[in-house]
Amino acid sequence: MQKDRIHGGNVYKAAKELNVSPNEILDFSANINPLGFPHAVEKIILEHIKDIAYYPDTEQNELREAAASYYGTKPSCIMPGNGSVELINIVFEAIEPKEVIIPSPTFLEYARICKNRRLKTRLLDLTANNFILDTELFNRIKNTISPNSLFIVCNPNNPTGIIAKKSDLTVTLEELKTRNSYLMIDEAFMDFVEENESMVDFIEQYDNLIILKSVTKFFAIPGLRLGFVLTNPELMRTFYNLKDPWNINTFAGFVGTEIFKDEKYIQDTRSYISREKKRLWKNISKIPNLEPVFPEANFIFAKTIGKIKVTALAEKLKQKKILIRSCSNYDFLNENFFRIAVKKSEENDILISALNEILCINTKKEDNL
Amino acid sequence: MQKDRIHGGNVYKAAKELNVSPNEILDFSANINPLGFPHAVEKIILEHIKDIAYYPDTEQNELREAAASYYGTKPSCIMPGNGSVELINIVFEAIEPKEVIIPSPTFLEYARICKNRRLKTRLLDLTANNFILDTELFNRIKNTISPNSLFIVCNPNNPTGIIAKKSDLTVTLEELKTRNSYLMIDEAFMDFVEENESMVDFIEQYDNLIILKSVTKFFAIPGLRLGFVLTNPELMRTFYNLKDPWNINTFAGFVGTEIFKDEKYIQDTRSYISREKKRLWKNISKIPNLEPVFPEANFIFAKTIGKIKVTALAEKLKQKKILIRSCSNYDFLNENFFRIAVKKSEENDILISALNEILCINTKKEDNL
Repeated sequence: MQKDRIHGGNVYKAAKELNVSPNEILDFSANINPLGFPHAVEKIILEHIKDIAYYPDTEQNELREAAASYYGTKPSCIMPGNGSVELINIVFEAIEPKEVIIPSPTFLEYARICKNRRLKTRLLDLTANNFILDTELFNRIKNTISPNSLFIVCNPNNPTGIIAKKSDLTVTLEELKTRNSYLMIDEAFMDFVEENESMVDFIEQYDNLIILKSVTKFFAIPGLRLGFVLTNPELMRTFYNLKDPWNINTFAGFVGTEIFKDEKYIQDTRSYISREKKRLWKNISKIPNLEPVFPEANFIFAKTIGKIKVTALAEKLKQKKILIRSCSNYDFLNENFFRIAVKKSEENDILISALNEILCINTKKEDNL
Repeated sequence: MQKDRIHGGNVYKAAKELNVSPNEILDFSANINPLGFPHAVEKIILEHIKDIAYYPDTEQNELREAAASYYGTKPSCIMPGNGSVELINIVFEAIEPKEVIIPSPTFLEYARICKNRRLKTRLLDLTANNFILDTELFNRIKNTISPNSLFIVCNPNNPTGIIAKKSDLTVTLEELKTRNSYLMIDEAFMDFVEENESMVDFIEQYDNLIILKSVTKFFAIPGLRLGFVLTNPELMRTFYNLKDPWNINTFAGFVGTEIFKDEKYIQDTRSYISREKKRLWKNISKIPNLEPVFPEANFIFAKTIGKIKVTALAEKLKQKKILIRSCSNYDFLNENFFRIAVKKSEENDILISALNEILCINTKKEDNL
């Protein structure tokens, strides 16, 4: 398989390899809300099974209204997609960027889609800046940006979990505007962040701002496929003209229309993640030879020290039916980085024990994994 | 709404307009198997609700094996998609055709996607040839085809229900091959056809042949979204590199893997459609001022004679909660054409009565609808 086609979260493949059922696997490689999807989801699916004999609604007005209200924008500024990959393709097709600039490591699909579309692409190395995306980094390259470029920021960034600040992004947005260029911010994990740095409020003010949202992660329904793109109403009309009329399946449409109303679930998730990510981070910090980055979202990015190779570590964990996301196929990263999701406390404890067992024994024995 | 964005099958929109529930509407505008989806579908969905908390399987090996066996090809020659629009985009992206030639009227999405991708497009008028696509029509234009062109045939054609013969298509395929050009055949409705004219057997022999298949229509699951593209293994690798890793939702994956095994359902559907399409066609033929084309698939294309305008006819039927597909937004067609699906006998009888009532009264009274 090509390097840029490897992602976390393939429990089916791992289950087959280990000859177990997918639900026996502890999957820390996909960053999904550990509380599971809201109770209402099952009921909505049961109510609408008969409806799969109809084509999905092409207009999805109720879904757009519900999502617009949740994300804090207008229905005319939002469009649903069958996950973010479809939406990124539409954005690229609409604006035909001259160059795409991608601070990396980040979600691999941006660069892969650029390659598919034969777009000129520039990756900015974040490793030298401790993975932090700030105006200083942007200022260093701003004079090299040609008109109709697209700058992509994943915020908080996947896999690092580091957040770019609204104040910095606003400056970037302004600078890009003067260069007739666009800023696309992928806020797939923003719902998990305590101090909201979402740029949705600027959608109508800046016609060069595009935002991606994911329902998949926070509401724990990756199998249903649902994401959104937000932009100003004029560019949005172009997006709509490019859209597959039936991109949203029937269940995603009905579930998406109801899911944002569950305020208790949303609050419970936020407070659980806020508490548990700190506990998990603290416990990982104590493990010899591991250096975790403090997480802004629901996952932890960690570095291994010395000769510990993540491929070997991941393989040992897999034998214990635990999946982590090796980050060695991300740009600018090597065999020393991995990412884990914040899961249920008892699951996180199993991971911590397993990591301690593997790393302590091995570092003592041979310091070579 | 733009002309090329209007399709049949939007029961949700009609239900809202009429202020009734979608299931009170008799939808003849979407060509879906009237027997409903196979019994197993509901059970499979119930069994896999918990699985939507995982990402869908990116490899879908079981699904590909099941579909390959059903369509009569190898797993290395088939790839699933979230409906045909996604797959057409991938085909266009992979081969970057110099020109796309589309015998029309036909499924509007081909030309719309060409427009979106700014591809040079040529529509061939089928009306002069009684909607028949044969070698004679192709021969007339073959010398004007430049290298790396793409010729698209919907077979049987939507909305006309007319089939192109395998013998004719083989000649076309050969001719296109000598011109280094491609033939894409959309066999979305081929499963309903009695005398199979599918070109799947030629997939490995001709490296310029691409076939689309739809699970949506025959198995009555348009809301789940599932289609396939078939081609030779080499071109297929390019398609895979262009594919969204998670394009297939969890339910579509599991349902698709099981659905092809229901041989009784498949046989029952074929014999029912074969019988009922003839009866419906015969009854429509008897209605004054209507000229239906004999259907090869599960829908009937009909012409109105004289001053009967289809928009007015469709509106009168809608007031009776019956939807038909006006074909006036298809290329080369005017206000005298419509399409109806073959539905359950009792539903077809309601349509026939309604048509008789509207057309007989009106033609007598004023001969102007």
